[in-house]
Amino acid sequence: MKKLYSDIVVIGGGPGGAICSVTAKMTYPHKEVMNIREFEHQMVPCAIPYIFSDVLGSVEKNLISCGMADKIGMKTLVGRVESVDLEKKCIYLADKEVSFDKLVFATGSTTFVHSSLKPSLKYDGVFTVPKNVEYIRGMSEYIKDKKKVVVVGTGFIGIEMAMELNSGDREVTVVGSREYILSNSFDEEIAQEAHKEMLASGVKYIANDRVVGIKDNNGVVDRVELKSGIELEAEVVILATGYKANSQLAEGLGLEFGHYGGIVVDEYMRTSNPDVLAVGDCAMKRGFILKSEIKTMLASTASSEGRIAGMNIYGIQNLRNFSGTIAIFSTMVGDVAFSSAGVTEAMAKIENGATVSAIFEGSNRHPSSMPDAQRQVIKLIATQNTGQIIGGQIIGGKETGEMINMVGMMIENSMSIYDAMTMQVSTQPHLTSAPPAYPIVMCATMIASKLRS
Amino acid sequence: MKKLYSDIVVIGGGPGGAICSVTAKMTYPHKEVMNIREFEHQMVPCAIPYIFSDVLGSVEKNLISCGMADKIGMKTLVGRVESVDLEKKCIYLADKEVSFDKLVFATGSTTFVHSSLKPSLKYDGVFTVPKNVEYIRGMSEYIKDKKKVVVVGTGFIGIEMAMELNSGDREVTVVGSREYILSNSFDEEIAQEAHKEMLASGVKYIANDRVVGIKDNNGVVDRVELKSGIELEAEVVILATGYKANSQLAEGLGLEFGHYGGIVVDEYMRTSNPDVLAVGDCAMKRGFILKSEIKTMLASTASSEGRIAGMNIYGIQNLRNFSGTIAIFSTMVGDVAFSSAGVTEAMAKIENGATVSAIFEGSNRHPSSMPDAQRQVIKLIATQNTGQIIGGQIIGGKETGEMINMVGMMIENSMSIYDAMTMQVSTQPHLTSAPPAYPIVMCATMIASKLRS
Repeated sequence: MKKLYSDIVVIGGGPGGAICSVTAKMTYPHKEVMNIREFEHQMVPCAIPYIFSDVLGSVEKNLISCGMADKIGMKTLVGRVESVDLEKKCIYLADKEVSFDKLVFATGSTTFVHSSLKPSLKYDGVFTVPKNVEYIRGMSEYIKDKKKVVVVGTGFIGIEMAMELNSGDREVTVVGSREYILSNSFDEEIAQEAHKEMLASGVKYIANDRVVGIKDNNGVVDRVELKSGIELEAEVVILATGYKANSQLAEGLGLEFGHYGGIVVDEYMRTSNPDVLAVGDCAMKRGFILKSEIKTMLASTASSEGRIAGMNIYGIQNLRNFSGTIAIFSTMVGDVAFSSAGVTEAMAKIENGATVSAIFEGSNRHPSSMPDAQRQVIKLIATQNTGQIIGGQIIGGKETGEMINMVGMMIENSMSIYDAMTMQVSTQPHLTSAPPAYPIVMCATMIASKLRS
Repeated sequence: MKKLYSDIVVIGGGPGGAICSVTAKMTYPHKEVMNIREFEHQMVPCAIPYIFSDVLGSVEKNLISCGMADKIGMKTLVGRVESVDLEKKCIYLADKEVSFDKLVFATGSTTFVHSSLKPSLKYDGVFTVPKNVEYIRGMSEYIKDKKKVVVVGTGFIGIEMAMELNSGDREVTVVGSREYILSNSFDEEIAQEAHKEMLASGVKYIANDRVVGIKDNNGVVDRVELKSGIELEAEVVILATGYKANSQLAEGLGLEFGHYGGIVVDEYMRTSNPDVLAVGDCAMKRGFILKSEIKTMLASTASSEGRIAGMNIYGIQNLRNFSGTIAIFSTMVGDVAFSSAGVTEAMAKIENGATVSAIFEGSNRHPSSMPDAQRQVIKLIATQNTGQIIGGQIIGGKETGEMINMVGMMIENSMSIYDAMTMQVSTQPHLTSAPPAYPIVMCATMIASKLRS
């Protein structure tokens, strides 16, 4: 048993773990920092669907290696941590032990499948979408010549998988429990548009239904049975029914866990043990209105948490100015981008928020006769009375991904529609809407009118 | 003489005037608002260069009409204001007079040409780039079959004109007084890249030189003589040497003017006369470090000022939270977008600012093997000691136009690199960089390292 020591040990090589290690080493250059990861190469998690289409076309095109590690003097160890002893302050791999001063769990998440469907995972052709290189490689090979695909789940990964697999004479059907896809992240009027784009691409959708059985033929998946009585022939079934915190390694150590399995942390990602932190999907998340537990799992959230943990691990030196997880996401459905930040209006109502919203529709270029101009729609959600911005949803071109980050920044910095109304923006014919019709400003102005009347 | 009255009269139909009128009407629905404009149709000012190439191809494709005016009950009058009497609170057109309670000057800017070159404007083939539909239409017709074009000036309009005119067998040469183009808006290392893009497209550049003479042949332009002794054959000369405040109408009324001719206004766009405001290019601008006078003239700035004037014209009800003009611009040079917000490092040094900066280089997609991935470079400039963000410059794809608005928002809200380091962002393979390598965050992190060491 080889014995090692590092001041800071971070378990997990995903975005949260990687960025936490890098930030810690940059913040505390005299401390030793070790990142322990199971695989030499990591995939970009949110690009997994694109492996299945021409966009990337192979697992190899989706691999990243943390090139920064060596440059800044951080250590990387490839291996699987088998157990943790917090009293001895030591972690154990098959052939090594590493003692530490500070430990960070960044063990990510694993796929979630409802217990009633778990037995079907043993059939050939039934898959989840885990962040595992070998699994995804095999899955991609298996699906290549299959024609009938059923995707269960209407979140980002499910819809992106459906869209990417929808090529040639392959028939892709999505089964969902809601009227429209992506309904957890978008209000109905926006989700409806994503829905329309998906149907236009030829992907089929069965709404308000749920899978009650997955049947095989000699161990090979054959069909999917729905609650409505519908039966779908299937050569491939993809269960994109969510992820759960991968926090098993942290069990039995006296730490606390949330309802969804995440390790409970404070705003600086510290657990109840002063020398142990947790970041990313394995850590519990709180929404920012009621501060109640939410299930958001995003690489970008993990990155932000990794940074906060890394820079404050030996004493708080950069105050966090926002409490809660904003949940900013983007996706493309066909050629149209859909983004969301903060809470949807539907979610705000559930959380008892009194809100007012407006939708502005314009163009992402000016004049709108510019080449590659696309319709741009923005919805902003603000608190009644104070006009504080708490959510935003955008439909548009590829600029949407950065525009939503601006909305996220407004939410995170407690900005109001009145701040938005006077903001100075850059506009350029090829790049943005027209200056007098800049959509964030227009939408804020519409909300201000509503608040006055 | 027809006599009219309107509570609020706004002179000028450009972005500042239009948005001021709309905002005033929306804020004070019971007040009458009249917008007086010289032309029925306005051009999008920053899209003028694209009229000269296939991008738009005609003046008609660049016309906008203020469709919102009728809908909200605002009045529009097409005509030229000939004089103003502030004692009688009345303005005069050829056949009408309009008395008012509040008056807003939004008379924009006109082209600036050095006095030594003014005589050459009478030659056929010598042009400026005014915001005048008929002029631009004629100019576009004239240039169509001409092969030798000389552009004088290296600002956005000059470079965009040069790039758009550079097609087929036309030869375009730019003459500038600096080593690289766009050097007022970008620090050298960024300007250099825009420069390289322009040269790669085939446009020629003559650096560190200046025009001393423009010669004709029977009233038709023939050649341009430079200080260095170089002579350039020219069928067309475009003097893109800047704009000046069009504030003549406001002269002799007891108002104050800045060094560059702009009407002096306070933070709420009010002149020294309590009932008179000015917005946009005709109003004086101040930078936000030393609050000294600057020359920035942008439609987006005019829009922001129009909104501030419109909503506060009958008493301040939305406090302006930022003093000064940020100057956010973007442009495309070839397929690469260049954006700038706030001050350049060079300008900060001139204004006596102690700064620290960093440059981060990454990709605008992740993994960078995604289709249409482009190199993304960001430079952030922060104050020494406090790390407050005071400037940013970005090179990248079309997302750059919205990313720079995020940087602008950080500047306007006095955010620091420490705020940037913990910000939550959305990332998506088709739309943004990778979550752990989000460039604004990375650049802020690099500055933080420098400040620590």
